[in-house]
Amino acid sequence: MVFKRSITKKIVTAAVLSSVVVGSFASLNQDAAKAENESGTKVKNVIFLIGDGMGPSTVAAHRYMKDDPNTKTMEALEFDKYLVGMQTTYPDDPAQNITDSASAATAMASGIKTYNNAIGMDNDKTIYKTVLEKAKEDGMATGLIATSEITHATPASYGAHDESRQNMDAIADDYYKELVNGEHKVDVLLGGGSKNFIPEHGRKNPGNLAEMFVEDGYSYVTNKEELMNDQNNQVLGLFATGGLPKMIDRDESIPSLEEMTTAAIERLDDNEKGFFLMIEGSQIDWAEHDNDIVGTMSEMEDFERAFKAAIDFAKKDGETLVVTTADHATGGLSLGSNTKANPSGDYNFHISPITAFKKTPDYIAAEIGAAGQSADVEGIMKKYIDSSLYSKITAEQFQTVKNALSTNNPYKIDDAIEDIVDEHSVTGWTTGGHTGEEVPVYAFGPEKNRFKGLIDNTDQAHIIFNLLEENK
Amino acid sequence: MVFKRSITKKIVTAAVLSSVVVGSFASLNQDAAKAENESGTKVKNVIFLIGDGMGPSTVAAHRYMKDDPNTKTMEALEFDKYLVGMQTTYPDDPAQNITDSASAATAMASGIKTYNNAIGMDNDKTIYKTVLEKAKEDGMATGLIATSEITHATPASYGAHDESRQNMDAIADDYYKELVNGEHKVDVLLGGGSKNFIPEHGRKNPGNLAEMFVEDGYSYVTNKEELMNDQNNQVLGLFATGGLPKMIDRDESIPSLEEMTTAAIERLDDNEKGFFLMIEGSQIDWAEHDNDIVGTMSEMEDFERAFKAAIDFAKKDGETLVVTTADHATGGLSLGSNTKANPSGDYNFHISPITAFKKTPDYIAAEIGAAGQSADVEGIMKKYIDSSLYSKITAEQFQTVKNALSTNNPYKIDDAIEDIVDEHSVTGWTTGGHTGEEVPVYAFGPEKNRFKGLIDNTDQAHIIFNLLEENK
Repeated sequence: MVFKRSITKKIVTAAVLSSVVVGSFASLNQDAAKAENESGTKVKNVIFLIGDGMGPSTVAAHRYMKDDPNTKTMEALEFDKYLVGMQTTYPDDPAQNITDSASAATAMASGIKTYNNAIGMDNDKTIYKTVLEKAKEDGMATGLIATSEITHATPASYGAHDESRQNMDAIADDYYKELVNGEHKVDVLLGGGSKNFIPEHGRKNPGNLAEMFVEDGYSYVTNKEELMNDQNNQVLGLFATGGLPKMIDRDESIPSLEEMTTAAIERLDDNEKGFFLMIEGSQIDWAEHDNDIVGTMSEMEDFERAFKAAIDFAKKDGETLVVTTADHATGGLSLGSNTKANPSGDYNFHISPITAFKKTPDYIAAEIGAAGQSADVEGIMKKYIDSSLYSKITAEQFQTVKNALSTNNPYKIDDAIEDIVDEHSVTGWTTGGHTGEEVPVYAFGPEKNRFKGLIDNTDQAHIIFNLLEENK
Repeated sequence: MVFKRSITKKIVTAAVLSSVVVGSFASLNQDAAKAENESGTKVKNVIFLIGDGMGPSTVAAHRYMKDDPNTKTMEALEFDKYLVGMQTTYPDDPAQNITDSASAATAMASGIKTYNNAIGMDNDKTIYKTVLEKAKEDGMATGLIATSEITHATPASYGAHDESRQNMDAIADDYYKELVNGEHKVDVLLGGGSKNFIPEHGRKNPGNLAEMFVEDGYSYVTNKEELMNDQNNQVLGLFATGGLPKMIDRDESIPSLEEMTTAAIERLDDNEKGFFLMIEGSQIDWAEHDNDIVGTMSEMEDFERAFKAAIDFAKKDGETLVVTTADHATGGLSLGSNTKANPSGDYNFHISPITAFKKTPDYIAAEIGAAGQSADVEGIMKKYIDSSLYSKITAEQFQTVKNALSTNNPYKIDDAIEDIVDEHSVTGWTTGGHTGEEVPVYAFGPEKNRFKGLIDNTDQAHIIFNLLEENK
């Protein structure tokens, strides 16, 4: 059932990858679901999208953002018609019962419950095969895309095995060293995080992995233009030393999640045996940890566009299953929350104070902080906040930003700006951490019905293992 | 399409009730769903359960409450295997974009979007037929059950029409005065709220409606024993002047939601043409408005037991459709939220501090308040809080309750006790009002597939109108 991790370069025991970890937890009626795949089409390709932190309230906030106020009904999101159910997300951690992204992604990738912080292993440190490794074993092409470091917890759980998500250099090593049938296990790696691949960018472990991948035939690209001009089916694309800038903070040199998705699919689809691709909207969660509604909505837009690109491909292709879900919710986000002015609740979630922002509060705070104690706070905020909101910011609210500036703590400047948008939009948060509610599950394509109803995050792996095995 | 409300006793224009308001907003593929009802069984009975305020986090909190810590997986809720999707809840209100219970229930009962506060009418004050009225028109038996006043917004929206949910005396009048085919439209009315029926209990409108219902052949019962001993198929049961006590605060004289459900089904099932029954777990929402996790969990337990009673009947019956959902979420509840001690989030939702409570904080606060300034705060709290939590309450926390007592404001005593359980359990709230996320939809029985995926709250009415019309 399991394999011991090989730490020797380019060696992974074959016996390891020939067994399939399936069904330990799933209580699904797969036969009944199979009967519902009327076309009988096999699943050639699997695209699995994870909106990190995309809980029910995050989806609803995005729905309000996309509403046309001139119509009586709310416009549908790209996700809407593919909703098939929800999933539970709890971990198996001795000290915590709300999941982190590592435990949740390990559940979805390998089908096991584990402790928070674990990458591809359980509480006994036993290593479990991931659906990506199974796909590669079966001769399929594979890809990982994230807007965080590509070695961050979620993508790591599909392509690496480590006791701790913190070991991002070692996770990058796994991408390079752990081979499947003598081949690198991930053909397309796109995201941020050159600091875990390249010593000059901050990597502490030995070796320049970007160079080593190039030696083995990969392209290495570092900006959108290079990605677009590249023709190689194996590519490592690292577009920032850490996480990518948020969508509304990006310049033209950084590809969007949609562009990375399209670039990956073009390459992976050349494999006749099909492909497995995991795409993460990583920073929905990051913005929620920061209690930043502007950033959260920026990253939901980025994620939805990538989702649409995946769906558009799947519709044309006909043999592609697209599954989309979240690993957990983050921040205790709520629409129509307490404001200082109205403790009993304002039954509104106003989007115009959010759409007024041209950059995230983080970006604006950084510029204010960089300008020093004599910063023109009003001037900088005016540059990045449309007058629809800017004109409503009170002298008292500007003063909170100036007070924050005087502390020389950039986080406090950021928080002060976030408080302003929260109050005007009626956005609420309870925490800088994760929360425990179930999250939505969307599916499109052949065998989508296997994902319907309430499932557990481990079922995602069990179902995909089954599909890969059936369709070899 | 619509009818003008008759305010004349016992007169409702026949033309009114002969038209069916269907399909204005629904974009459902009803034919496709029909094809999935493999058995071809007709829907004879419809039981529609509404967990008021039962958002995704409320369901998840209940899941954690029901978890057996000795097993690795979380135990399934009664609801779980019936999850078919989620619904949007937004209103059509000129000033608010988060719904209240009146607008949401009107959407589910009549299939129209309307303003917050509206009972069975739209923004133009046009009155729309409800699914309950349609059922009665077709000769079916009908029932309404709530743990709030039976004239509260949710049940009112199924059996009355009023510009404002506040007019609860007039809503009681509607139950009595608005006839369908010369008959009272609701055969079984069970809940709280004698203050809106009986002048001596507080009713301001003329007439003792309880007496008038009895004159017309109804039984009138006021406690559990009377309900259990009654044999009449038409019954008005009012078990409190206002809302019922919460489940964990009730004495034996008050029936549970499950007992009311069973009592109603026994009566309604005698009708050969079938029945429509709406059951509301009203006070999940009330406890959430109060940011009271103990009360919220009490009411979820009460609601789940009623749900199980409905499902058990439907399984035996074979011709009963059971649909369960919420009207909206309330309170911005989150599991694993900020505590004062840990602003970056504690990845836990601890249930033992909640299960330690034998009565709600409201109940305990009332007893402390009643004892006056010399109240034995520790003694009273010890009586109602198991030592597992009581022993962990700090001197500082007891002092917050004493400080609240000194203000002579019972709400502050309640809040102080709630703060204690929130901090120990890691429960977060953002608001005393409602929030805008989508809510889960569960369905069991013939035609359950019509409710699957993401639907709008108005679709609930459209689908049920269709089913009633098809199965006349």
